[in-house]
Amino acid sequence: MSAPTGDIGLIGLAVMGQNLILNMDDHGFTVVAYNRTTSKVDDFLAQEAKGTKIQGAHSIEELCSKLKTPRKVMLLVKAGQPVDDFIEQLLPHLEKGDLIIDGGNSHYPDTTRRAKYLEDKGFLFVGTGVSGGEEGARYGPSLMPGGSPQAWPLIKDIFQAVAAKTTDTNEPCCDWVGEGGSGHYVKMVHNGIEYGDMQIMAEAYDIMKNLLGMSYDEMAQTFTEWNKTELDSYLVEITAKVLAFKDTDGKPIVEKIRDAAGQKGTGKWTAISALDLGIPVTLVSEAVFARCLSALKDERVAASKILRGPENVHFSGDKKSFLEDLRQALYAAKIISYAQGFMELRAAGEEYKWKLNFGGIALMWRGGCIIRSAFLRDINNAFKTKPDLKNLLLDPFFTKAIHATLPHYRRVASQSILLGVPVPALTSALSFYDGYRSARVPANLIQAQRDFFGAHSYSTLEKPDVYVHTNWTGTGGRVASSTYNA
Amino acid sequence: MSAPTGDIGLIGLAVMGQNLILNMDDHGFTVVAYNRTTSKVDDFLAQEAKGTKIQGAHSIEELCSKLKTPRKVMLLVKAGQPVDDFIEQLLPHLEKGDLIIDGGNSHYPDTTRRAKYLEDKGFLFVGTGVSGGEEGARYGPSLMPGGSPQAWPLIKDIFQAVAAKTTDTNEPCCDWVGEGGSGHYVKMVHNGIEYGDMQIMAEAYDIMKNLLGMSYDEMAQTFTEWNKTELDSYLVEITAKVLAFKDTDGKPIVEKIRDAAGQKGTGKWTAISALDLGIPVTLVSEAVFARCLSALKDERVAASKILRGPENVHFSGDKKSFLEDLRQALYAAKIISYAQGFMELRAAGEEYKWKLNFGGIALMWRGGCIIRSAFLRDINNAFKTKPDLKNLLLDPFFTKAIHATLPHYRRVASQSILLGVPVPALTSALSFYDGYRSARVPANLIQAQRDFFGAHSYSTLEKPDVYVHTNWTGTGGRVASSTYNA
Repeated sequence: MSAPTGDIGLIGLAVMGQNLILNMDDHGFTVVAYNRTTSKVDDFLAQEAKGTKIQGAHSIEELCSKLKTPRKVMLLVKAGQPVDDFIEQLLPHLEKGDLIIDGGNSHYPDTTRRAKYLEDKGFLFVGTGVSGGEEGARYGPSLMPGGSPQAWPLIKDIFQAVAAKTTDTNEPCCDWVGEGGSGHYVKMVHNGIEYGDMQIMAEAYDIMKNLLGMSYDEMAQTFTEWNKTELDSYLVEITAKVLAFKDTDGKPIVEKIRDAAGQKGTGKWTAISALDLGIPVTLVSEAVFARCLSALKDERVAASKILRGPENVHFSGDKKSFLEDLRQALYAAKIISYAQGFMELRAAGEEYKWKLNFGGIALMWRGGCIIRSAFLRDINNAFKTKPDLKNLLLDPFFTKAIHATLPHYRRVASQSILLGVPVPALTSALSFYDGYRSARVPANLIQAQRDFFGAHSYSTLEKPDVYVHTNWTGTGGRVASSTYNA
Repeated sequence: MSAPTGDIGLIGLAVMGQNLILNMDDHGFTVVAYNRTTSKVDDFLAQEAKGTKIQGAHSIEELCSKLKTPRKVMLLVKAGQPVDDFIEQLLPHLEKGDLIIDGGNSHYPDTTRRAKYLEDKGFLFVGTGVSGGEEGARYGPSLMPGGSPQAWPLIKDIFQAVAAKTTDTNEPCCDWVGEGGSGHYVKMVHNGIEYGDMQIMAEAYDIMKNLLGMSYDEMAQTFTEWNKTELDSYLVEITAKVLAFKDTDGKPIVEKIRDAAGQKGTGKWTAISALDLGIPVTLVSEAVFARCLSALKDERVAASKILRGPENVHFSGDKKSFLEDLRQALYAAKIISYAQGFMELRAAGEEYKWKLNFGGIALMWRGGCIIRSAFLRDINNAFKTKPDLKNLLLDPFFTKAIHATLPHYRRVASQSILLGVPVPALTSALSFYDGYRSARVPANLIQAQRDFFGAHSYSTLEKPDVYVHTNWTGTGGRVASSTYNA
């Protein structure tokens, strides 16, 4: 048997796997493709991979035998048990120093666990975020790799070659994120932010359609115009396209689609991690809950026959200027949402001891991924200028930007509320902003209430570190609560 | 040695434990008290328990030896490892059929685990919610017991005797919740709702103070008045008291308290469980995040010097009528928050196979606990009338109530947004209402976007169960996404 010539092996021939293989092949790397249902391998070689130097394998053993050492095997399979199963199937055919890469949407704690498990056995492991969908995988995804540090030099060339490049500076949208599950954590937050971006656009669509009575062509045109402004982004671009897309009968296809959004967990994980870290990532959380509410379609239909909205009220302002208010509201909410996302990344880095390079993360998101935008260049710049920037809102560029949008943003939020259009993401981000800019929030009342009913004690503005209990009623005991949360 | 006379043993002499013991003693039960730091036992017997028939124990063995069989030992210790530790210390001194009760704020999965662990060994286990703080524990708490069904007959008399009674019907605010961790789950949701109630009152306080410029005495007076209306509740009552409470220098003490709210996890658990179950419990989640934001005190102080709010805008309406708007807004948000809480309980019951009695849960919350209110009588009635009521908002009484409040609610939310007062809980609940009453929400756009970039496929209004993928660009492959979430 001839010497192995495979640069990297790839397991899992669903849409992402196939496209990533074709992408690697375009860049001159020899990829060995394997899929559990091996007929998929033959189909792929006979069709999409026809005329390339992509090799096929019909068993894990064959896959590994065709790879140059140190072997690099990338998994693009369903997150969860399948990843652990393939790792176990691979181990007998690998040598110490070989590398397993998980390119699926694994939950970061699993990636941290797998990295330790494999490192303890002398292997290397990388959990990498891959974003960009079919198109990205095929022509340049955003790659967010983290795990065994010694693995980076082994994959840097392949990863940075296939990754998207920034349009202006031509930098690869891929860099080393950090140890353990940090790569998948960054991808998780990316997806959470993606949920948020999509939700605020859905709220804008709702306002355009039901409050301003715009047609699909008008809405598509508006998003096209917005894509030439600060909102310039992949999601705004495709939103214009899907709104303009007509079914075979000439009618807008979006209007026919069932309003029950699916989700696969990464947005939920982002919200749960935020709750665990104690960081108010409110816009993404509301976006996740909005998808949950949309999924309760039958309940909503039943409720719509009983619960009423505002009556005899209609939008009366100037449509054109309100559309500009709306555009600015989206920009403001986006700034706040990304500020919240980076707050979460900072807190996670401190919690899990990852040295995260925030500017690098913004760079990885600049191209290839679903949230790619001109906006991320500005975020990248903010962190380039001040790597230890505490909050995106405090960067001069963004402070100026958010200040300019606020009057527009407040008009949109208040009008939507008065006219009965649900805007959970837009309003929660605005309340976050108003809370974050407040030296004092009303939590002192909450501390007083907690001390009243649960003797939880509180500290004062004067002595922040001294906790005292007030006997509010005169009838309470002399025992301070140490263990109880009523 | 004489025959044991103890009806029940109690471990943990912090404020809740001591008060619950005194309460049990009041009702004629013989309680044996134990605490790891045994000097606390002597202090307690010499002081609070002086002249009662409360017995002390200086070791676990002595505690168990003083109990009649089947022994009942209740733990009121810090949730987590201490509960498991005490269980292990107790086992050698217990016989099959004996019962261990955990009255702490344990996380429901731990309670489910412990119930199975002890039942497998032939013991009984109960995890019970206990709410009411010092006062409640002393004079009648709300008790929410769940776990080994055979345990209920053993504790029913003691629990229902010491529990609070409804003021009108004199029913005990304690009934059997269900299997496993259901008792602690119900207590968790109770606490989540409590976080929500406290947050909307904090938002009202913020509006009164900073938007209407009211004094502490005026605010206290207003809450006192509100307590005679639909808002009649323990939390409104104590809010009036803490707002009126003056420090030794005659100044309002609440004004001096540091605005950084603490939390012990149950609100967070409620939000995380809601995310896991896919139920939009948005008001409680925003309340938890509002506490997180309040805790970032130093960051807020720094941001307040840079980030601006609305300028040259002041409240201009009629103060008196706006206060009535505010009262109605609180009532509306409360109705929505409880509707969300019961949605979560219903989903949890289905997920964990607990047969939950929603009317019974409302009854347990009617007295003793922190969220006790006249309002819960109406909820209790709603479920009495229609035990399978799908959503509280669809009960005729609450539909009528929410409809009446909406114009007021919308005014308060929109004014707060325009004037820069953060109202995350008030606005998220209103958006939930507007979404829940909508037969169609804009999630169809999200489904189109997901299918565009990730080939996730979607279904149509016409054929809800048929999932199709549109080749939006003409360049996508022929492979449908089965495993990927970009």
